[in-house]
Amino acid sequence: MKARAAVAHKAGEKLTVEDVQVEGPREGEVLIEIKATGVCHTDAYTLSGKDPEGLFPAILGHEGAGVVVDVGPSVKSLKKGDHVIPLYTPECRQCSYCTSGKTNLCQAIRATQGRGLMPDGTSRFSIGKERIHHYMGTSTFSSFTVLPEIAVAKIREDAPFDKVCYIGCGVTTGIGAVINTAQVRPGDNVVVFGLGGIGLNVIQGARMAGADIIVGVDINPKRRELAERFGMTHFVNPSEVAGDLVPYLVDLTRGGADFSFECIGNVKVMRQALECCHKGWGTSIIIGVAGAGEEIATRPFQLVTGRVWKGTAFGGARGRTDVPKIVDWYMEGKIKIDELITHTMPLDDINHSFDLMHEGESIRSVVLFS
Amino acid sequence: MKARAAVAHKAGEKLTVEDVQVEGPREGEVLIEIKATGVCHTDAYTLSGKDPEGLFPAILGHEGAGVVVDVGPSVKSLKKGDHVIPLYTPECRQCSYCTSGKTNLCQAIRATQGRGLMPDGTSRFSIGKERIHHYMGTSTFSSFTVLPEIAVAKIREDAPFDKVCYIGCGVTTGIGAVINTAQVRPGDNVVVFGLGGIGLNVIQGARMAGADIIVGVDINPKRRELAERFGMTHFVNPSEVAGDLVPYLVDLTRGGADFSFECIGNVKVMRQALECCHKGWGTSIIIGVAGAGEEIATRPFQLVTGRVWKGTAFGGARGRTDVPKIVDWYMEGKIKIDELITHTMPLDDINHSFDLMHEGESIRSVVLFS
Repeated sequence: MKARAAVAHKAGEKLTVEDVQVEGPREGEVLIEIKATGVCHTDAYTLSGKDPEGLFPAILGHEGAGVVVDVGPSVKSLKKGDHVIPLYTPECRQCSYCTSGKTNLCQAIRATQGRGLMPDGTSRFSIGKERIHHYMGTSTFSSFTVLPEIAVAKIREDAPFDKVCYIGCGVTTGIGAVINTAQVRPGDNVVVFGLGGIGLNVIQGARMAGADIIVGVDINPKRRELAERFGMTHFVNPSEVAGDLVPYLVDLTRGGADFSFECIGNVKVMRQALECCHKGWGTSIIIGVAGAGEEIATRPFQLVTGRVWKGTAFGGARGRTDVPKIVDWYMEGKIKIDELITHTMPLDDINHSFDLMHEGESIRSVVLFS
Repeated sequence: MKARAAVAHKAGEKLTVEDVQVEGPREGEVLIEIKATGVCHTDAYTLSGKDPEGLFPAILGHEGAGVVVDVGPSVKSLKKGDHVIPLYTPECRQCSYCTSGKTNLCQAIRATQGRGLMPDGTSRFSIGKERIHHYMGTSTFSSFTVLPEIAVAKIREDAPFDKVCYIGCGVTTGIGAVINTAQVRPGDNVVVFGLGGIGLNVIQGARMAGADIIVGVDINPKRRELAERFGMTHFVNPSEVAGDLVPYLVDLTRGGADFSFECIGNVKVMRQALECCHKGWGTSIIIGVAGAGEEIATRPFQLVTGRVWKGTAFGGARGRTDVPKIVDWYMEGKIKIDELITHTMPLDDINHSFDLMHEGESIRSVVLFS
């Protein structure tokens, strides 16, 4: 069948919106009609050519929502008409990672996903005779996409696609980092570095978990107002702090953060995030993705005196289990999403969303397919 | 009163055994007759002059055992005749660190302890008119020493001083890192870097906690036999591994260590210890003390994919609560200590214990006072 898709033919070039051929679902796969997709920094990173694992040509996009329109043989948990969110982190519930209960990093289809292919080692996308790679196992920049059943979260049918698509990455990453990875508890003091989409979701996660002091750190003062509406109690602009930032934050949090979150991808900020943590127990969580080859560093004394350095991917969330819950939280008003979606546009305008991102104008742009 | 003590007059010089004046216990303090003390790498580090916080002249030593011979006003938890182990990490049970339940790093007397003084800002040691500094709040290289009540663990009276003194540092640091900091559980796979006294205690802690694979890594093959008696299941000599050590250890532990322990103080080994951990959940614990100003580094990807970087001091043990338990474990045969004490000597020979340490001949030397 035909789909309308934004195709990344080469690194560093704009996407081209065109018709692509989509093959129907094979064993254990489902065909999904994408209704809406967010455009994320990770898509931009891969498109830029800086991602050493980027493959081209490819259909990017990993933050979608849509409807199942066909299922392959032996699919049991999904049926035509189900509303779903594609998962770039699957949840097979069978592999040693899933059954460990200690991580969300399901390894069932990791090797083929990393090669831009479906689990059987082939692609469902083509243009003429040219094979087009899948991306992050999701390829949501296409009106139709194919996913393995284990990489699809079924959600309630009254949830609006143009909002809950954001739960496919940013919302879950931020809120999940607080709830699953950090396990913030009422009364904790939290510092959040970077008030983009991830940082704002960390802030609302911290508020939901009952944190006391919620410090937001950003060099862009324009983010302050929205962050305060999301639960930030103190705003710190590093360019306005006289002297070192770390002791300033330690003072502000009365001895250091119980939990800090790096939501930028800057290795120097990752160090500050660790070192502003409370001696004895403060835990810093890296969410941001650093540039290829970059390294974090600190004195081991920081750890020997009780600080803990962690990271998180997809907010530690098990996609099929946790994503439907986060959709419920949005529908129940426990978390906000509408305020974070600053721009919507049709697929034909998708390249504009990258411009808005690079100019710092958008928090999240969402592309609508119909 | 007079005490016989090994005095460190200057960095880089040998200790001199001589008479020192000891003032009796003031408010909240106790006078302890030291019966035996271990000699630890940390004493050697400070004596060498490399420790930027080292103060001279001082009475070193922090791994002792003895008997309370006098108590100052308002001391309630101790009385004359009690058998005790001095604690360089106190446990006041009142400060915000103690009451947090999240750390053993009691801060009650930290500032004065770091300045080589008792909590009231004075020293109890002198030679003529010269004030001698306390060291780590313990100064166990003296036949008599004074400690605050909150820095003394009361132990059972049938425990031999010349063995349980080692619980004052090395034993508790190693076993505590496994039990308190890592919280190793039955079936876990563990890698231990460095098979000195700390590493061997980590190994017996891991065995006691029910670990499956217990890998010991050391360039000294002479440590293999004893490590095996302590519970090591696999020995790895890095100089005999063809290719990179990290993937070798990941293979050996079937995917990576659930917990790894760095017991050397080498920042390059600390990185290996982190990176040999299991993706998704493996946790690396830094025990070794790195040189002043040295830094650890890794790619943040290591943490984002689920590894956790931690440290521990005094094995995360709350001294007054946990040290008596470890003494019990020794007396009940649950842990071994005798095999680790390779040399004993009178105080007059204390400098020989440093030679043995530097030559790699000793695991632990214990100095006897009577």
